Amino acid sequence: METTVELIAKKRNGEALSKEQIERMVRELGEGTLADYQMSAFLMAVFFRGMTDDETVALTHAMLHSGDVIDLSDVPGVKVDKHSTGGVGDKVSICLAPLVAACGVPVPMVSGRGLGHTGGTLDKLEAIPGFTVSLDIPTFHRIVRDVGCCMIGQTARIAPADKKIYALRDVTATVESIPLIVASILSKKLAEGIDALVLDVKVGRGAFMKTESDARALAEALVRVGTAAGKRVSALLTDMSAPLGRMVGNANETREAIDVLHGCGPDDLVGCTLALGSEMLRLGGVAKTDAEARATLRAAIASGAAVRTMERMVEAQGGDPRVVAEPDRLAIAGAVTEIYAPASGYVARVDALSIGLAAVALGAGRTRADQAVDPAVGIELMAARGARVSRGDVLAKVFARTPADGARIRDRVFEAFAIEEAPPPVLPLVLERIGA
Amino acid sequence: METTVELIAKKRNGEALSKEQIERMVRELGEGTLADYQMSAFLMAVFFRGMTDDETVALTHAMLHSGDVIDLSDVPGVKVDKHSTGGVGDKVSICLAPLVAACGVPVPMVSGRGLGHTGGTLDKLEAIPGFTVSLDIPTFHRIVRDVGCCMIGQTARIAPADKKIYALRDVTATVESIPLIVASILSKKLAEGIDALVLDVKVGRGAFMKTESDARALAEALVRVGTAAGKRVSALLTDMSAPLGRMVGNANETREAIDVLHGCGPDDLVGCTLALGSEMLRLGGVAKTDAEARATLRAAIASGAAVRTMERMVEAQGGDPRVVAEPDRLAIAGAVTEIYAPASGYVARVDALSIGLAAVALGAGRTRADQAVDPAVGIELMAARGARVSRGDVLAKVFARTPADGARIRDRVFEAFAIEEAPPPVLPLVLERIGA
Repeated sequence: METTVELIAKKRNGEALSKEQIERMVRELGEGTLADYQMSAFLMAVFFRGMTDDETVALTHAMLHSGDVIDLSDVPGVKVDKHSTGGVGDKVSICLAPLVAACGVPVPMVSGRGLGHTGGTLDKLEAIPGFTVSLDIPTFHRIVRDVGCCMIGQTARIAPADKKIYALRDVTATVESIPLIVASILSKKLAEGIDALVLDVKVGRGAFMKTESDARALAEALVRVGTAAGKRVSALLTDMSAPLGRMVGNANETREAIDVLHGCGPDDLVGCTLALGSEMLRLGGVAKTDAEARATLRAAIASGAAVRTMERMVEAQGGDPRVVAEPDRLAIAGAVTEIYAPASGYVARVDALSIGLAAVALGAGRTRADQAVDPAVGIELMAARGARVSRGDVLAKVFARTPADGARIRDRVFEAFAIEEAPPPVLPLVLERIGA
Repeated sequence: METTVELIAKKRNGEALSKEQIERMVRELGEGTLADYQMSAFLMAVFFRGMTDDETVALTHAMLHSGDVIDLSDVPGVKVDKHSTGGVGDKVSICLAPLVAACGVPVPMVSGRGLGHTGGTLDKLEAIPGFTVSLDIPTFHRIVRDVGCCMIGQTARIAPADKKIYALRDVTATVESIPLIVASILSKKLAEGIDALVLDVKVGRGAFMKTESDARALAEALVRVGTAAGKRVSALLTDMSAPLGRMVGNANETREAIDVLHGCGPDDLVGCTLALGSEMLRLGGVAKTDAEARATLRAAIASGAAVRTMERMVEAQGGDPRVVAEPDRLAIAGAVTEIYAPASGYVARVDALSIGLAAVALGAGRTRADQAVDPAVGIELMAARGARVSRGDVLAKVFARTPADGARIRDRVFEAFAIEEAPPPVLPLVLERIGA
């Protein structure tokens, strides 16, 4: 049997490892017989040499089976989840899960927390008083079966090898590797007991993937490897040059997501939710075409079924279900700072990265994994890209704990906007669809 | 200030780090604030991206100054050392140091132990009864001053950062990187307080560098970086397809090295010693030309000065000086196995790697750093490459502890030889000289 050094050298030299060799490395990392410094050298070699799809499938499976794999086979229907690579203002999961569940497709969803300039679904959900994302697997299972959807955090027992490897990647400059990203996402998602997965790969300054070609490469790899791992998978490339929706911040975003279930909400957020929901309904087998899927989704909103599913999920997870009918029950910080248009014209740019970093500075996000977030603080964008504004119009409102906090990020929010004389070209929200 | 992750990412992206950044990484590794798994990821990035000469000089200096740097400025003369990249039967240091010292060039030498198929100078010296290679720096200093040469092992206080980084490279498949090899060699050698250094870069199956172009690249980098670090440096590329000399094993090799000081010894060993000695004498300023240097070296052998220097060094280091006049006092294992020529013809090949591995299997070397070696076991090659042999002639003698030990490696030694009808082409021992 090869030594660990020989396996690292094999990858370093550009050769593919066997399924057994990858399984052994992941197992020995868990057992501690393969040292962290060996895994990090291996990960850097993967950064340079890549992995074949077979290797990526093997890595996905090895990390998946390092922990519990939830068995939802007794829940009727095709279980479908959605995963986003993360963006600013991306609260889609919060409205999408109950909406799709209301249409008859069970949605078991394990989400993450915010880190860096992007927010996290768990932080947003926790803005609902009493809502817990820390449920044990039997409870998660029961809620998916009874309500149709449940949204929790990654437990220590889900893909622990991914947790360990991700923590190493984070401190060794080996995050930006497509096979490693693919295996990390899929190992966690496959542990949920899903049959199908829709991926929302964000592109632009506010996203992890800055260019369309990088995002396409990631989306294609996710679809290929997920399909090879036996799941039905499709992906949408969606724009993340500007924040999604008008609200950034935790309670703020949950409020806006609930608006979508009430048939309101900004066009881009509704559009993104319907596009991803349509994918999920088709993979879930309850709609054959995009038009049919969209009609089903709209009907679930119009009938109130989506709102009722959200209420039942919130209640099942210990939260106050009244926030669904009355989203204004959610907290909002009291010190409001307004940002004014410096000139008349068209909003040519609302930079997602700047807005995301401003929200983090406000306390809505984290720069280190052990920080707490403030649910009440946030930013409301009053003028979206393409809007006509007059000098002195309010471009954005900052909701801070104190006026000083608001004043501190004022310039950053101001600089996120560019006002130009001519209207900017209209950009599509969904850039491309990848999948069968 | 950049985070460690940013520095790793910088190298990963192919950028050069500053002197300060490299110094910080090495210092923080020593302090434990930079983790082993970060250093190993960085080392793998260096494997792929390389280092500029400025970076390699900075790494050399950072590792050098992680420990004590010996100050020999009160020893008159230009202090010169020799370093070999290692080969089978390479006992040159043992005769070269006293020979060059006898010519008036002080030789402060810090050597290593054998690992894998190559032997180590320290193991060979310890075959001399009483000889110690573990001296403190003041004693080392005194012996260099009084005798002209001293040969010790790397102490814990010499380049501890190199020790730590080398140990990581060894288990993370990052040994084979020219800038890392160069910085490792030079940081240890510069810690000896030398003014000049001659490098013997071995090429061939028995060497670390298997091809002439790889060896040349290493030699050129060593000369460039060593010169940039302020030392006078030259390098010879020498052949290591066959073992050097006739003797392999610890006491065996020390005996053969002493033979050279007595004016005997096989041609290749004498040739290699004189070629390297000539470089050292010229760098040391006691000879202007190769011819003058060789004449000086031969005179030191003929006059007995070299033997007397060796005796004084052995005595100063606690060894029995009588072994120099009477090398047969050195141990030799009693179970002799002879290997016979299977056919008549010319010895076309004596494979250094096979012979080296056979010697390790016999107990002369190590497969792990914590193993002990047996000084008395070894192999004597009775027929060198190019020799005419008749069927049944003795090609080699194996000196083992037990007849069973000898029988176990018999086939391996036998297979190291190839006998062919036509004489093989004559190959030069010194392939190339690199340096000013």
